[in-house]
Order: sequence, then C-alpha cells, then structure tokens
Amino acid sequence: MNQDHEPQLHIPRGFSFSAATAGIKASGKPDLALAIAAKGTSAAAVFTSNRVVAAPIEVGREHLAWSRGKIRAVLVNSGNANCATGKAGYAACKQICSVIGENAGVPIQQVFPSSTGIIGVPFPAEKILAHLPQLMAQAEASEKAVRAFVGAIMTTDLRPKLASAQFKFAGKPVSILGIAKGAGMIHPQMATMLVYLFTDVQASPSLLKTHLREAVDISLNCISIDGDTSTNDTALLLASGSSGVALQSASARVRFADSLAEVCRSLATQIVADGEGVRHVVRLLVQQARSREEADRVARTIAHSLLVKTAWAGADPNWGRVLAAIGNSGVPLDPARVNIFFGKLQVCRKGEAVSFDEHSAHVYLSQPRYEITIQLGRGKSHFEFLTCDLTTEYVHINADYST
Amino acid sequence: MNQDHEPQLHIPRGFSFSAATAGIKASGKPDLALAIAAKGTSAAAVFTSNRVVAAPIEVGREHLAWSRGKIRAVLVNSGNANCATGKAGYAACKQICSVIGENAGVPIQQVFPSSTGIIGVPFPAEKILAHLPQLMAQAEASEKAVRAFVGAIMTTDLRPKLASAQFKFAGKPVSILGIAKGAGMIHPQMATMLVYLFTDVQASPSLLKTHLREAVDISLNCISIDGDTSTNDTALLLASGSSGVALQSASARVRFADSLAEVCRSLATQIVADGEGVRHVVRLLVQQARSREEADRVARTIAHSLLVKTAWAGADPNWGRVLAAIGNSGVPLDPARVNIFFGKLQVCRKGEAVSFDEHSAHVYLSQPRYEITIQLGRGKSHFEFLTCDLTTEYVHINADYST
Repeated sequence: MNQDHEPQLHIPRGFSFSAATAGIKASGKPDLALAIAAKGTSAAAVFTSNRVVAAPIEVGREHLAWSRGKIRAVLVNSGNANCATGKAGYAACKQICSVIGENAGVPIQQVFPSSTGIIGVPFPAEKILAHLPQLMAQAEASEKAVRAFVGAIMTTDLRPKLASAQFKFAGKPVSILGIAKGAGMIHPQMATMLVYLFTDVQASPSLLKTHLREAVDISLNCISIDGDTSTNDTALLLASGSSGVALQSASARVRFADSLAEVCRSLATQIVADGEGVRHVVRLLVQQARSREEADRVARTIAHSLLVKTAWAGADPNWGRVLAAIGNSGVPLDPARVNIFFGKLQVCRKGEAVSFDEHSAHVYLSQPRYEITIQLGRGKSHFEFLTCDLTTEYVHINADYST
Repeated sequence: MNQDHEPQLHIPRGFSFSAATAGIKASGKPDLALAIAAKGTSAAAVFTSNRVVAAPIEVGREHLAWSRGKIRAVLVNSGNANCATGKAGYAACKQICSVIGENAGVPIQQVFPSSTGIIGVPFPAEKILAHLPQLMAQAEASEKAVRAFVGAIMTTDLRPKLASAQFKFAGKPVSILGIAKGAGMIHPQMATMLVYLFTDVQASPSLLKTHLREAVDISLNCISIDGDTSTNDTALLLASGSSGVALQSASARVRFADSLAEVCRSLATQIVADGEGVRHVVRLLVQQARSREEADRVARTIAHSLLVKTAWAGADPNWGRVLAAIGNSGVPLDPARVNIFFGKLQVCRKGEAVSFDEHSAHVYLSQPRYEITIQLGRGKSHFEFLTCDLTTEYVHINADYST
C-alpha cells in the first residue's frame, strides 16, 4: 500500500493522465484534469444524495446509462461547480464532452465530466475548450501525470490524496489507484467528495457497481467533517481490463474487494486528516449497540455536535458533551449503561463521572489522531466512524471563501 | 412590552425573588437564584428531549406529577448542571428541595429545581445549602430582585434576558414576566434553555400546560444556534392567581395566549441575539411549501449547515450554499422551482443565479439582523425560523469552556 509520501504508486495499465491551468481558479493554479481510458473500459459510479445536483452529475448519470457503463475519458475541473447554472451550464458540460469525444474518437456518452468549486457562478466553458487539445495531447501513463491530475482537482485541499494497492492473481499483477479531493462538505451517504478509482482488472459495469458500493460503504460513507452534503460529489470506478485478470472466480473477487477497500479507506482517512482547519482526527468506536444502524446513528450525532467538535479543538476532556450528544441521537438508550473511554482511559462509567487524571486526558486529546470508545450497554453491534474537530480555521476558511 | 433595556418591568403579583453567590462558579459571580410563589400557584413545564437528563429534570418532573402541578418555590443554580452525577447528584437535588420545603413550610414536591453548567462534575450541594437561609430571607417582589435572579442564572450569556407584558381584563391588570438564560446549545424541540414564566393570572395546571406548549411551539422551538440539545433545559410557567383574573372565558384565554406568546417571542429573539459569538441574527422565511413540517425541515437544515453559517459570519452572499442546504433537507423538491432572496434582493430564480449587485448583498448581510426568504414553489405553507451565524468566537468560547 502506497500513499502520497511514499515513492512508488501502482498505476494500473490502460490509463493516461494530464492536467492544465485553464484560468478557472482565480489563484492561477492548475484547474483542469483529464484521464483517458483504454478501449473497453467498464465504469460504475455513485453520486451525491443532495436534491440539488450540478450539471456534470446529470450528464455523468446520463452518459453512464446511455453507454451502458462504458467510459473512455474523464474530465474534471476545479474552481467552478457548474451548479445552479441552468440550461447554459448543462449545455456547456455537454459541449465539452462532445469535443473530447470527437477528438478521442469515442461517442460523447463515453465521456464522464466532474466539476468542483463555487456554486451559482456561470460556467467558463470557453476556458476549458481552449485547453482541451493540449490536455489530450499530453496525456501519459506516468506517475508525474497522475500527480498533476491530483493537483488540478484540489480546491481548499492542502494535500493531494492518493492511494494505491496491488495484488497478484494467477501470477498476474492487478493494480488499483485511487485519487480524491475534498476538505470540507465531507459527509456520509456518499454525498461529499470527488473520488476516482482506476484499475486494470477486467469486470462488467454491474459487478464494478457492487464492488464500488461495498467499498464506499465501509470507508467514504463512514467519515464526516462538517455534516454538509455537496451538490457535485462523485465516486467513479474505471476498470480497463488491461491486466488480463477477470473477476470471474470468488477468490479473485475477494482479493479485489479487499484491495479496493484498502485504497478507499486510505483515501477516507486522508480526506478527514486534510479537513478544513482540522487539527485532530478522531476515530469513534461505538460498541454494544443493538444494531449497526443504531451504532451508526450515535456515531454520526457525536460527529456532528458543534459542542463536541469544539471541545476536541481545545483538547478538552469534557466527556459530558459526548454523553449529551449520545442522548441526543434519538436511540432509546439508558444513560446509566453508557461507558466512555478516551483511548484506554475510562472517563464515564454507567453514565457517571469516573475519577481520572484530567492532565493525562488532555495530553491524550492533544494528539493529532486518537480514539474515543462509546459502549452503549444494549447489544453486540458496533460501528467505526472517522471524524475531526472544528477549529477557528474552519470558520475562517469558510467565511472567506467567495468574497 | 418591556425588554431588558427599558426601564419598567411588569412584575406579576404573588412572586418574590432573590439571588446569591454560592461559589459554584469559578468566576465568583452570582450562581444561585430563588423564586417564591404565593399559595395556590399552578405550574406547568416542558423539558429537554435529550435521553440523557440531569438530576433536576428527573426531580422536577416527579415533583410536578406528585404535587399535581402546584409549585411554591423554584431554585436555580448555574455553574454545575448536576448531570451524569448519578445517585449522589439525585440525592443532593432532593436534599436541597427538602430544606427549602421545610423552611418555606411547603411539601418537598412543591419545590422545583433547575441547574445549568458543566456536565459530569460532582454537585456541590453543601455550597448551596449554606446559602439557602440567606436566599429565602432576602426574597422580595422588586425589579431589583428580578434582575438579581436573571444575573445568577447566566452562564456564557453576555446579556440578561427579560421580557414582560401586561393586559387588562374586566378592568384588572394581568402581568406576565419572562426570564431566560441560554447562549449555546440552543436547539429546537424544547431541549435547549432555561425559561421561567411568571404570571398572576388564575388557571389550572392543565390549562397552563396547553398555553405553555402553544407559546413555546411558535417561539422557543423555532430558534437554533448550534443544533445541540442540552440535558437540562426547561421552560416553567407559574400562575399565582393574584390578579383575580381567571382564564375562564375564551376572550381571557386569547388575551393571555397573545401576551404569553409575545413574551416568549421576545425571549427567543434575545436568546439568539446573545448566542455564543453571534454577529448576525438571521430570520429564515420558508414559503411555498406543501406543509408547515416541510418548511420547518428546510429551515432547520439551512440553520444547521456549517457552510451556510460560516458564510453568514463573513457576510458572504454565497447563496449556492443555501441552495445546497435546501437540497440536503430530505424534502423531495425540484431545485428548478426554488427562489432565494436576501431581504428584497433576489439572488436565485428557479434554481439559477440571478445577476445582482454583490456589494449591495454584502452590505445587506453585514447588518446585525436580516431576513432570508426561500420559496420552494410547492404549495402554500410557510414557516419562520430564527438562527445565527457561526463565528470563530463560538469556537473559542466552546473550545475553552472547561479547561
């Protein structure tokens, strides 16, 4: 498993990448990224659950349906979400896909668009169109090109998010490469970020969809930064088939599922760690629930409590706020059965204060990453959730975004 | 209608007030408040919806039930919530009620306790017991005593919250006095603050309950600061009957309901305006919904979006975040029918950007109070909701609370 800071990335065969600076971002940083996929590449995607969706989400859904899960090119721009831009935004998105399709010699329906950035600002299609020939000409299968792609999809991200994995099946290597962006508006229910997963395994679009849903459900759907849900977010999985390994046997599918989950979990962790203004990444372990859903509900309520998140920002061992959030989850629990631990340090036993060393607790909560365990005393189900603190930097970043 | 800054308060007959500094607050500020009610006083209360409740909530519920809605004394302490304090906290609360009952010559069940402050810290009963004789001896029916009561129940409040109203019925004046605290953890569903309403009207506990629920539903349940729900919050309505006016006729009930709603609305507005770190109070008007519930859901989703609240902190006319929050409400709306207005300035028409003067919008959103109207294009129901921005000060206040 390689992450960003490590030297080698496993780049699956059958894909080439490029990036450009089209002038969409006021900062003048790269804002256009392209991936070209080999003939026969299968695709599956999951999209935001928001009722308000951007033009590229509409177009991406149509293209996946019309092409029956065949995608040959992915174009991502940052700096403008192409959302709430009406018919003009939709038409601009279609036009760009059409030009890419013509140049690549593939039907427009095999082009998949994504956008991220500000909502409600007219979409600068001409800037993108002007850079397409260069983008397409420069695409290559190098690590350098992959890193350029990642850089161009970032908005308020401070760090690029990359993960890859490789496994061998019947002597042949299969690679999975994951690329993501997202540093705010990160919320469960796949509503939240841009994630592109590339693999050279051979699989049908419907099988890819199953694997994608399963992997996302245990990784990207178990994280939260601010509880907001974006209008644009997408996870796309492309399989070129170039490895020569097909997902025909159960053992191949298990190997693939494990590696895909590993890549998605790494991306999920990287996304939370790079959350806007985040200083502490908190792993919530909710145990002894009657069901996974119940544990999930408790975890999300804690993760969305402003009082809890601000206490974390101050490394404040105020476990009472955690208990209050648990009580606010809607789960009909008995507070007198609840235990809370900061790491291994128990701070609440059966709903009551435990005498503990506040300084040790403060030191523990001062770490960049730590765990909080909650035992509900109701059953045997459990759930893990990754979230973060809420700092003044988050407010600064988001109060100053468009003005 | 008189609020805090105006000279005169209408103090209903049949009540006396006092306050003391018992040393519960580390700051050394007043932290104990008492109200004594005339014989025959009726009472009704609504409590937090949190599953985790403080000892005084349990005791208050029991006492109201056992006394069949008769209350003669109210004791409030700030600085310690007496929550997650187990059997010891419950016993301490009962002991304090018992001492007050003995001294006042009333059954323990006619004493109503409230606490606000930090959760999970042992309850300092001895400090309170030491100050009860002084508190009870000093109670008086003066404006000075009312203001001392308000001061002693404040925690992170910057301003005391008081409102009163008076109406005449059959030539006799009836007064309603409202006292509140709360500056964080303010959330709908009556889960959220301490509110004491005193009146000299004559009414049964069950009639009071009806009036209290109605008034709270259109005032204190339509506000949100941070979406968190406290373990302690309470609204209590006491009626001494000392005015000689009984709520027997429909016209008397209408007059009373109007005045009670007026007092509750004033307190609700004061609470939001004094929300932790609040710089902008925002009135959300959600219109053209299919039902009030639907409009309510949209309003609360907007009010709880961190991205929207931080944009408000920066007076940022980023209406796209409002649209995204609307889409995130779960209401099956069509974004292409949604209109958004900042005051009278339309910024989104049928889900799309409208050309508007960004500077004017920024100036409008820089005001301490303003309105945002959302039209859903689905029906004729509407809902009004009061909320606020999220500033770095909120984070500072809450990151530093217990440490």
